[in-house]
Amino acid sequence: MISIDRSFQTADLGDVRVANRAVVLRHVRLHAPCSRADVAARTGLNKATVSSLVGELIEHGLLRETGLTENRVGRPATMLVLDGSRHVGLGLQIGADELVVVAADLAGEPLLTWRRAFAAATAGPEETVRALATLTRRAVTRVTGAGRTVLGLTVGVPGLVDADGVVPAAPALGWRGVPLAAALRRALRDPGFPVGVDTDANLAVSAELRHGPYAGTADLVHVTGGLAVGAGLVSGGRLLRGGRGFAGAIGHLPVAAGPPPTGTEAPACHCGRHGCLAAVAGVDAVVRRLLPDAASDGPVTDYLPEIERIQALARAGDVPVRDGLAEVGRQLGYAISVLVDLLDPEVVVVGGHLAALAPWLLPAARAEVSARTSGPPATVRLEASALGSVASAVGGATAALAAVEAGQLPAA
Amino acid sequence: MISIDRSFQTADLGDVRVANRAVVLRHVRLHAPCSRADVAARTGLNKATVSSLVGELIEHGLLRETGLTENRVGRPATMLVLDGSRHVGLGLQIGADELVVVAADLAGEPLLTWRRAFAAATAGPEETVRALATLTRRAVTRVTGAGRTVLGLTVGVPGLVDADGVVPAAPALGWRGVPLAAALRRALRDPGFPVGVDTDANLAVSAELRHGPYAGTADLVHVTGGLAVGAGLVSGGRLLRGGRGFAGAIGHLPVAAGPPPTGTEAPACHCGRHGCLAAVAGVDAVVRRLLPDAASDGPVTDYLPEIERIQALARAGDVPVRDGLAEVGRQLGYAISVLVDLLDPEVVVVGGHLAALAPWLLPAARAEVSARTSGPPATVRLEASALGSVASAVGGATAALAAVEAGQLPAA
Repeated sequence: MISIDRSFQTADLGDVRVANRAVVLRHVRLHAPCSRADVAARTGLNKATVSSLVGELIEHGLLRETGLTENRVGRPATMLVLDGSRHVGLGLQIGADELVVVAADLAGEPLLTWRRAFAAATAGPEETVRALATLTRRAVTRVTGAGRTVLGLTVGVPGLVDADGVVPAAPALGWRGVPLAAALRRALRDPGFPVGVDTDANLAVSAELRHGPYAGTADLVHVTGGLAVGAGLVSGGRLLRGGRGFAGAIGHLPVAAGPPPTGTEAPACHCGRHGCLAAVAGVDAVVRRLLPDAASDGPVTDYLPEIERIQALARAGDVPVRDGLAEVGRQLGYAISVLVDLLDPEVVVVGGHLAALAPWLLPAARAEVSARTSGPPATVRLEASALGSVASAVGGATAALAAVEAGQLPAA
Repeated sequence: MISIDRSFQTADLGDVRVANRAVVLRHVRLHAPCSRADVAARTGLNKATVSSLVGELIEHGLLRETGLTENRVGRPATMLVLDGSRHVGLGLQIGADELVVVAADLAGEPLLTWRRAFAAATAGPEETVRALATLTRRAVTRVTGAGRTVLGLTVGVPGLVDADGVVPAAPALGWRGVPLAAALRRALRDPGFPVGVDTDANLAVSAELRHGPYAGTADLVHVTGGLAVGAGLVSGGRLLRGGRGFAGAIGHLPVAAGPPPTGTEAPACHCGRHGCLAAVAGVDAVVRRLLPDAASDGPVTDYLPEIERIQALARAGDVPVRDGLAEVGRQLGYAISVLVDLLDPEVVVVGGHLAALAPWLLPAARAEVSARTSGPPATVRLEASALGSVASAVGGATAALAAVEAGQLPAA
């Protein structure tokens, strides 16, 4: 989700051209196929400007003419579409039990989605960087073999990320002070495209803004499901980062033992405290609670089979599992009610395993949100993310295309 | 705090002029006295554009020439300053025990600050509207008698405010569904200037952005002290409103009984629940807790003497009072730690009676913030607002000038 903050910026001619280029690209992205005249009429730009910009964008491989013409009154018009053939963005995701890479073109079409089983929490930072680099090189080889140029790569991390791409803390992975962006750049040996890092929550909510049923919602939150529980926050159409980039750290809100709802014994959290949201609703916590025998063969490093077992038991009406999910849902609902009071979002979506278990989590969560929010009755929608478990990687691929979408021309 | 969101807007010539006008005005506001050449050099606008805009702004009474010239190499230059003589904005504030009106000129200079003892919670909405209208008429008479034009009026309310200027709920005042903006416009009999309503927290944080030690901070929160406790939220330089305008409702976060810190018995809140932040830290709650005999002569409707008594006792080292303030500080600190984890602000300021009692509240609050925030050590600054008890009214007066600051020319 790109926005150009032009507050108090003088509108000089260069900025005007960049802004207008972004407008043209966005219009074509949303309304393709469309003619130059359509773009001019709908955006208010004059036709000469549109022609000039379109010519430039075609030359740089960002737009192309389809050759189709419309049947309409007057001269036939050549239609324009985004040119998805030249450029690609890469997104990587460090998941609870896997690494994901997504390549997407300028039109947002996913070109490849690869998943590799990998337990980053067990492997540690150096091995994870090596694995990310290997996955990246293979994806780059695949897409450049098809003749494309990689414009950038962004990695989503389940933890905090600062403005330099350093992960000061990711308790769910046991990481502290990991200079991930720099390490990945080194491992890729100067890849020739920018390498960025962001939180998985920020990337996931950015993906929600572009794809799926809540695209374009101005006040939206994505709560990640995974080892960590974090929130990507969009307010007034903008991603909130905060002073140090640490906004959205909802995972350590105390939700168990005392009001909020009383748990029997507040579970211990990776961060060292008890009763945190992540210690209740994180994927490892949910599996441990509902499948107490799951770890009897050794530590769980692959969560998908366990989540599927829980789904099967819940569908079959297993009472302890359903009650356990309802309790987790209530505690999640309490945390979301705090978010709702503070940020007044229109929509809150939950991802990862929280989406997979939504049929049994969200009814209890919604009831808790209704009961706990102050003020007028809650109108917020609480839903499962439609983006599956790859939301962060999709967001990362799109982030890598952000500069182009903002109207800057690619270097090549 | 004005920002022009130009995301995806075409930069047509009209918008460009409005944007550039705002830039010139802001530059002069921040750097007056300055010459046209200074404006051009520092903003990047060309000299012809600057001259044209300055001429227009002088004509509309927004800038004036001081007649001073600088001693410098080359031709002497005429200096420009904001013209504070023509236009004025009005801000009203519904306080715990008073109504406040502030008139400010375009330069932000307060022209008058009047306070009238008034207990809105006891008086009810209709009487409050009448009292606000009376105060407004007197202030308008005073400033227009000095030859000024009122550009607008904004009222700050300790409760929720929707986009139509309706107060759906202000539990601290006992108000539900009060169409305040419309009622005030009616009572003023079509005053000839816009009448707006916003939360006192939003107006106070807007005032913090312009005046005082934290002006210009991109990630800033103002927590109001009064009957209600609310938060005005600025993130990335923008005020957060949320989907319905209800963002910042921190007053009903549960802070007592259970982790968060355990109170003996969770105090009842105006909203019907127990242990809310407002029920612990609101001015009525603090007075009730620390001066149990205060209501023996009848309900407290004038809080200033009670706050001063508490200050005197605390200064004198009264142990129950100091311990009570430290406990309130801890619970406030818990609520602020939730804000810090979610929004990662650089600065959190507290206003009203919380500022007056800051020396005994904030040390405990800061300790709690340090203990409870997750992630890297908290670097957030937690301070008393420097704006006194009229922050919301000051913010309201400035809000009334917002359209002009955004580069729109006043009607007159």
